[in-house]
Amino acid sequence: MRKTILAIGCCLLAIGLHATEVKSPNGNIVLNFNIEDGRPTYSVNYKGRAVILPSHLGLELARDKHASMGEKERDLMDGFTLEREDTSTFDETWQPVWGETRNIRNHYNEYAATLSQQWRENVKPTRPGIHWQPRHHRREMIIRFRIYDDGVGFRYEFPQQPDLNYFLIKEERSEFAMAGDHTAWWIPGDYDTQEQVTQETKLSEIRSRFQEAVNWGNSSVAVFSETGVQTALQMKTNDGLYINLHEAACLDYATMHLNLNDTTMVFTSWLTPDATGLKGCMQTPCETPWRTIMVSDDARDMLSSNLILNLNEPCKLEDTSWIHPTKYCGVWWEMIVGKSNWHYTDDYPSIHLDKIDWKAVKPHGRHAANNEKVKRYIDFAAKNGLQEVLVEGWNVGWEDWANHWKRDVFDFVTPYPDFDIKMLNDYAHSKGVKLLMHHETSSSTQNYERHIKEAYQLMNHYGYDAVKTGYVGDIIPRGDHHFSQSMNNHYLYVIQEAAKHHIMVNSHEATRPTGLCRTYPNLVGGESARGTEYEAFHGNNPDHTCILPFTRLQGGPMDYTPGILETELKTWSDNPHQVGTTLVGQLALYVTMYSPLQMAADLPENYEKFDDAFQFIRDVACDWDDSRYLEAEPADYITVARKAKGTDNWFVGGKCDEQGHQTTLRLDFLDKGRKYDCTIYADAKDAHWKTNPKAYTISHRTVKQGDVLKLKEASGGGFAISLIAK
Amino acid sequence: MRKTILAIGCCLLAIGLHATEVKSPNGNIVLNFNIEDGRPTYSVNYKGRAVILPSHLGLELARDKHASMGEKERDLMDGFTLEREDTSTFDETWQPVWGETRNIRNHYNEYAATLSQQWRENVKPTRPGIHWQPRHHRREMIIRFRIYDDGVGFRYEFPQQPDLNYFLIKEERSEFAMAGDHTAWWIPGDYDTQEQVTQETKLSEIRSRFQEAVNWGNSSVAVFSETGVQTALQMKTNDGLYINLHEAACLDYATMHLNLNDTTMVFTSWLTPDATGLKGCMQTPCETPWRTIMVSDDARDMLSSNLILNLNEPCKLEDTSWIHPTKYCGVWWEMIVGKSNWHYTDDYPSIHLDKIDWKAVKPHGRHAANNEKVKRYIDFAAKNGLQEVLVEGWNVGWEDWANHWKRDVFDFVTPYPDFDIKMLNDYAHSKGVKLLMHHETSSSTQNYERHIKEAYQLMNHYGYDAVKTGYVGDIIPRGDHHFSQSMNNHYLYVIQEAAKHHIMVNSHEATRPTGLCRTYPNLVGGESARGTEYEAFHGNNPDHTCILPFTRLQGGPMDYTPGILETELKTWSDNPHQVGTTLVGQLALYVTMYSPLQMAADLPENYEKFDDAFQFIRDVACDWDDSRYLEAEPADYITVARKAKGTDNWFVGGKCDEQGHQTTLRLDFLDKGRKYDCTIYADAKDAHWKTNPKAYTISHRTVKQGDVLKLKEASGGGFAISLIAK
Repeated sequence: MRKTILAIGCCLLAIGLHATEVKSPNGNIVLNFNIEDGRPTYSVNYKGRAVILPSHLGLELARDKHASMGEKERDLMDGFTLEREDTSTFDETWQPVWGETRNIRNHYNEYAATLSQQWRENVKPTRPGIHWQPRHHRREMIIRFRIYDDGVGFRYEFPQQPDLNYFLIKEERSEFAMAGDHTAWWIPGDYDTQEQVTQETKLSEIRSRFQEAVNWGNSSVAVFSETGVQTALQMKTNDGLYINLHEAACLDYATMHLNLNDTTMVFTSWLTPDATGLKGCMQTPCETPWRTIMVSDDARDMLSSNLILNLNEPCKLEDTSWIHPTKYCGVWWEMIVGKSNWHYTDDYPSIHLDKIDWKAVKPHGRHAANNEKVKRYIDFAAKNGLQEVLVEGWNVGWEDWANHWKRDVFDFVTPYPDFDIKMLNDYAHSKGVKLLMHHETSSSTQNYERHIKEAYQLMNHYGYDAVKTGYVGDIIPRGDHHFSQSMNNHYLYVIQEAAKHHIMVNSHEATRPTGLCRTYPNLVGGESARGTEYEAFHGNNPDHTCILPFTRLQGGPMDYTPGILETELKTWSDNPHQVGTTLVGQLALYVTMYSPLQMAADLPENYEKFDDAFQFIRDVACDWDDSRYLEAEPADYITVARKAKGTDNWFVGGKCDEQGHQTTLRLDFLDKGRKYDCTIYADAKDAHWKTNPKAYTISHRTVKQGDVLKLKEASGGGFAISLIAK
Repeated sequence: MRKTILAIGCCLLAIGLHATEVKSPNGNIVLNFNIEDGRPTYSVNYKGRAVILPSHLGLELARDKHASMGEKERDLMDGFTLEREDTSTFDETWQPVWGETRNIRNHYNEYAATLSQQWRENVKPTRPGIHWQPRHHRREMIIRFRIYDDGVGFRYEFPQQPDLNYFLIKEERSEFAMAGDHTAWWIPGDYDTQEQVTQETKLSEIRSRFQEAVNWGNSSVAVFSETGVQTALQMKTNDGLYINLHEAACLDYATMHLNLNDTTMVFTSWLTPDATGLKGCMQTPCETPWRTIMVSDDARDMLSSNLILNLNEPCKLEDTSWIHPTKYCGVWWEMIVGKSNWHYTDDYPSIHLDKIDWKAVKPHGRHAANNEKVKRYIDFAAKNGLQEVLVEGWNVGWEDWANHWKRDVFDFVTPYPDFDIKMLNDYAHSKGVKLLMHHETSSSTQNYERHIKEAYQLMNHYGYDAVKTGYVGDIIPRGDHHFSQSMNNHYLYVIQEAAKHHIMVNSHEATRPTGLCRTYPNLVGGESARGTEYEAFHGNNPDHTCILPFTRLQGGPMDYTPGILETELKTWSDNPHQVGTTLVGQLALYVTMYSPLQMAADLPENYEKFDDAFQFIRDVACDWDDSRYLEAEPADYITVARKAKGTDNWFVGGKCDEQGHQTTLRLDFLDKGRKYDCTIYADAKDAHWKTNPKAYTISHRTVKQGDVLKLKEASGGGFAISLIAK
């Protein structure tokens, strides 16, 4: 680590119209900051082109009802004076516990502007006979920028100080003024879901597309503005710049949305409220999350950037030896598709957990998480080198678990009668496999927190080391939202409690990630976007997985649950839907959608049908020493080569949209002079995601550095290649 | 236990204008129930006089956003048909774990009306090409009445049924139509406090007094109506009937207020809302709390009634051997008065628990809960037969604990550096005394629930067996209220978790009790009203403790913390306030304000100043085999004799308002032929709560059954008598 403090000419401060310019290490990105009529204002350029036009920064505060008499709350928006500037350079290389590369360089120039507000007010006397007293107020706020070669992060910092101890945020007012009517890949801003279908429009078209976007796929829950969108927001300018807006290190602070003024093309931050409409309760010293602006003229840089991880704090867990990348299968897809159920009985119109003798209950016979079936999945995992088996629906309460405002919906420790928790864990361990725990909370977070310690003790007792959590439905306590400050605190609490018990967390329906997995690497996965499950509901578009790496994956890995090789669900169920990719497209996702946790989501019997193609899933790694993004264009195609951790083997994945794609793959990344066994899983010539999805070829050859492979991806297809060093 | 099912003539059901009459066991109280234009309607008479005029019953429901398409929520208010009537008689005598009497008789006639609502509606088809389908709905609700000789309880019951599985309560609409413009002792209805000064007005004067009542003593927080009042509401009719409205067994349901229509003199129930304004989330089978109407022409019956306890479920704790009545002192009053502090340091403008090295912090020197002082209190308790010593301010976080919307305000396990938790508990135990734990939650209930298990484990580890909990300030999660359904569930959760750890609970600022101490006798005390602490703030009126037994104490004992013998606080502090009773009045409270948990709240040095008067506090019991209310009039005077549990000793207390009182005490309750050492603590002739509060006499004599004592109580005074069997 190397940190250099650069002196800034203080003489500049005396000048009224002061503006500071700070460049990224390679000089491509330039930040400008100044105080404009008392308002902090910044802009960002990239290679001389405007990325962020001059934009105001600040926070609007709410008056606390406990504020002193006569004291008016003053926003942190204007009336600022620049007190001090600090600039430094930072350069370190760190090693993630798991990741896309073995080493991550964190290299930036930092600029911190210390601002002050000062004012006088007359305060009502506390005793009679005394005149109103003038009181002098002075508050400081720091705006800190980190300028990387691939983007900028900034945040607000609030030192502990007499005039700013506690404050309430009415709204954060960080502006991001766009320089044009860019193309954007967006989903509607929503306080409770991120599972909508991504829209591709000009910024000016968001409003007219909004209602359709809300209806599409039927997923929106709590939208707030017809030009409100979520982050990570990927954009492309007319002249080929790629711009991405998101946030990093969102800890005990509300998740940020962006609200567009589509006249001026200015985005303003829009936080998720609590039950009373307030956006945040703060106690100094504290800071906001980082607001991130990634920019490049090469789309591949959007995918290889580590800016968001770098803006998070280093790992806080002393021992990480128990954290491991995992491939898993599970009792899941057959329930999603509708072939079997999470719940056990139809005897009761509703369930009171404390009043039912489960042993005496009549099962309906379609309960998936039963001993026989779970053993079959364990056998399958053991045979195919999958480390864990997820079992959903193992615990009592699924009969009426969602959307009834039930607080005590699950206890997380009582299995259904046909799930022998001890036997199944013993059986799994005897075959070198672990079970993967499932805690659907039904968003009754109060209930989950009440049971969490016992639930994790039970996991420790039986040898589970990972939990998939779920937050389906409305938050209890009522009125709260999935992405509020208190819920973000809850997710963090779960991660921290899990870490105490050496448990890895894969959090579904939680807030979108912001790189916290650097600090808490037991957060190995999450959902927070439209996952494979929608293939069984309304469907995912063929371009869906060519967008997610630009948006959802910016903050951390996704448990997308790929691997649905039997793409036509009607072949084994009553579900009429069809997956929006070819079979090979599903294989490609194990490489293109980076995650240390990868599911083989299809049924064992479907994998047996396509056992030669399944070989790629058996072989592919999920932790890497290196990653090379070879081609990328949002919603069109992504090609990436990755080197499996601790080996000399490479895996390459290519995924494309409904247009298909031709790739000329130069094997320049291989070790010079070394030979590799190359297996190519490719779409057949006439393959097509809709009309002929399961037509594929598998070919083998020996290759070396510099060889070139010509690959054709079908509509909604892709390719997958394994390169095993000889 | 004896339960008789009485047949009701079903022929009556065929008649449209059916009315059922059910009498109390002694016939004094008569309930009438009928369906009036589809609305359930009841009335109550006492000895032929109207107590409740015909009043409607029902609940207004809120539409759940998850309700099926086309389904309109229908209230449980009207359209009812009487389906079935059941009447029975119940008579049992049970023994409380602690109480005012050794045996409690539970004797009532019960009447349950099963009502049905039926309607048809057209339901939108789920598939195209199908016509709208008529759907038949049928719902059942039971209204159950229990008619006692001293009052009536009723509740709504909702069986599990296809058309009523989950529902949301917009408002409960139980009416209580008064037969005249009664005198009422009331405090403003408030979602977050019950600590206001009681008002005595006619019902018609509530509105004009309301604002004054809200301002008076500066305690109201969240009022909702200018004629909204709290229960237990004590009233007196112009012709001398005493009527009391309250509730029993409020479990996981919002606390009820009463809103008066002061034109018609009809009270309607008004529940406490959640953060979204909703009043309740219900899942069948379930029931509401009991709504209670106590009535008599003798005010003493209001105090001796066990109706509310009887309407609660029997004890649910299998082992109650660890629950014990307790007299205690504590490090408390000196902080309340302002002589010392809960907090330890002034070094920080605010506290982050995880960032402070408490050992390195500079103490301000006024921290009360220090080793030396606590040892002095332990010595005092041991010397004077007090079983426990409460210590507030022992744990870190008091520097900025209230009203800052801080979630992580306390951890409940970390002592300040000058509080040696192991040494002090060991020291106390060596002297036969226990420390009494204090958990101020600052109303951050989420934080308390996160720490509760570890906090109770710490208590078990060091040998604490009782906790005083506190809920000062606004509820976190934000928007919730102290008396909402979710908070009532929280208080119950705390009681149940405490019971698992064999911990007794004394809950301050929690919702007003409704007799739950029968079911959970580890709930040994509570505050939920204006306690002694206000003597150091705005003061309590001399009549205050002549009202509380009629109102607050109906639901359970109060930790009033009496015993302030040094009534003039300026004698030992800078606090200018004076207690609103005489010294002897304070002694009387140990008998008139029943509680199994009684504090000797004054400082040891003040007790040393009045050691002869303190003898009564040393002697008085706090658990009883018998209690006889000898005289009572709300806000005027109360005289009660109690027989100490397991002994032949009696204690008599008399307490009066600012008017003074003359009592002719007939010792008829003593054992025939037995002699008693009688010690009388009386106000001196010229005593007066304000001008001469500490003038008292102590006299001794031997007495026997039939003797008569003439006693004069001063303005704001009282008397206290111990009768020790020879």
